[in-house]
Amino acid sequence: MNAGAGFDRSVPRFQRIAVLGLGLIGGSVAAAARARGVAGEVVGYAPGADAALALELGLLDRMAESAAQAVDGVDLVVLAAPIPAMPGLFDEIAANLGDQALLTDVASTKRSTIAAARSALGSRFARFVAAHPIAGGERHGPRAARPDLFESCLTLLCPQAETDSQALEGVQDFWTSLGARVSQMDAQDHDQVFAEVSHWPHAAVFALCAAIARGSRAEDALRFAGAGLRDTTRIGASSASLWADIVLDNRDAVLECARLFEDQLRSIIAALEQQDRQALVETFGVAAEWRARLPAPPR
Amino acid sequence: MNAGAGFDRSVPRFQRIAVLGLGLIGGSVAAAARARGVAGEVVGYAPGADAALALELGLLDRMAESAAQAVDGVDLVVLAAPIPAMPGLFDEIAANLGDQALLTDVASTKRSTIAAARSALGSRFARFVAAHPIAGGERHGPRAARPDLFESCLTLLCPQAETDSQALEGVQDFWTSLGARVSQMDAQDHDQVFAEVSHWPHAAVFALCAAIARGSRAEDALRFAGAGLRDTTRIGASSASLWADIVLDNRDAVLECARLFEDQLRSIIAALEQQDRQALVETFGVAAEWRARLPAPPR
Repeated sequence: MNAGAGFDRSVPRFQRIAVLGLGLIGGSVAAAARARGVAGEVVGYAPGADAALALELGLLDRMAESAAQAVDGVDLVVLAAPIPAMPGLFDEIAANLGDQALLTDVASTKRSTIAAARSALGSRFARFVAAHPIAGGERHGPRAARPDLFESCLTLLCPQAETDSQALEGVQDFWTSLGARVSQMDAQDHDQVFAEVSHWPHAAVFALCAAIARGSRAEDALRFAGAGLRDTTRIGASSASLWADIVLDNRDAVLECARLFEDQLRSIIAALEQQDRQALVETFGVAAEWRARLPAPPR
Repeated sequence: MNAGAGFDRSVPRFQRIAVLGLGLIGGSVAAAARARGVAGEVVGYAPGADAALALELGLLDRMAESAAQAVDGVDLVVLAAPIPAMPGLFDEIAANLGDQALLTDVASTKRSTIAAARSALGSRFARFVAAHPIAGGERHGPRAARPDLFESCLTLLCPQAETDSQALEGVQDFWTSLGARVSQMDAQDHDQVFAEVSHWPHAAVFALCAAIARGSRAEDALRFAGAGLRDTTRIGASSASLWADIVLDNRDAVLECARLFEDQLRSIIAALEQQDRQALVETFGVAAEWRARLPAPPR
């Protein structure tokens, strides 16, 4: 494990941090912060049984009874709740935040989270730096969390005009100290690009799996699926409710991708119906050429 | 490497075999037969430069100048050419086949290959056993071939009413001796199930990649794609012309899958437009539940 150049691991960078939401991402933030000695104490909060489970799994030092209690006296707060819970969470913690506390989040969409933070935090919004670690997987919940999730993982920050430069630096250091590679991106660009590379592909894969599941050969398909279908549909095992929230939150950009996809789909189906081999080869070829350029993973 | 229980590797099961077509699958059949001592001599033929390349790569013992020459004096012929080349290939070799020569193939669709064999081979059709090894990958050509491709790989045989039982046994032994697990399946069932688990998913993934490639954010998508999109689109790097031939050959079954897919797609897009979270969660949930049941690969 590489704690990053120049970090002195004997002194935690943060005395106490709070992680709100302890699923795959939040739980991994907590676990990574503990494993790498990034914080003197990692406090966690999540509704339901997740906080107790996260504590039992060793992801946390301590669990809090509420989000407001969790942020008491912390240097940094990481909001890792499902998207619809974010506005309420900002409202709940706003009054309890210390003057110097930094805030960051992990939501897959950035414009709505930034808007919620701006509306709830008042002058404290200057110390919120929206973040999206490009990590994840089809597994979810505290049991899927792991301390190495962010190693070499690109994490995009979307600072705003109001963002304090020291806060930006502090949040950037936080993500770097978890192992991530940090880069900045405009929030609107972010939401459009991620509609294309993540949100719409999830919807399309859910459609592919649902068509098989609701068809007459769902059991045969389980028996005869090869490595291709297994890889293609891996993200189709993701959380239905988390992904419904994500695609709804980024609805306009996702619908724009849906329209571009439908154009290609219709042209493929028309070529099939008309037995137009040349048109199929051309569209498949454009696809294959693009895919061949997709770089291998960084690690 | 496990040559299978009870096989005596000191005596090759076949004196000489011919492999016609030396891409990923044909090349791997040849390489596996050599590596496992299944045949005394492995002769290969492919049009263009593939045969010389396969010989240079050590996949073959000898290359032939034509398909007809390749099958001269062999115990078994494996047809591994692209689907549209199959009828011509059966015609070309029919007259040169020895009386006891067995035939098998590797095509991803089975009805058309069986029909071509039946029409070209006359009484020799009794010794043809159509096969589909469920192996492959997005890489293609002789350089992608590897001797372990069929280890633990399910290979489906589609014997017909005319099939000689000793020929069936011999072809079954051949695939088993390459490491494959062999099972039998009705050819029409085969083509319908594989439209669902392979042919249509390839077309859908080509559509997804083509929409990105032809959109305005193709370069951003290369930069920001995560593991999810990488896995989802892996098969999108497959050969455009091979897959155009496969989906056209199995057109009716593929179009039926396309219609079922479009139904699910339309319901997802409508739910997005109407912000109907419940409908999204339901369809995504049906998909995720099916996908979660897909077993991990056998090795």
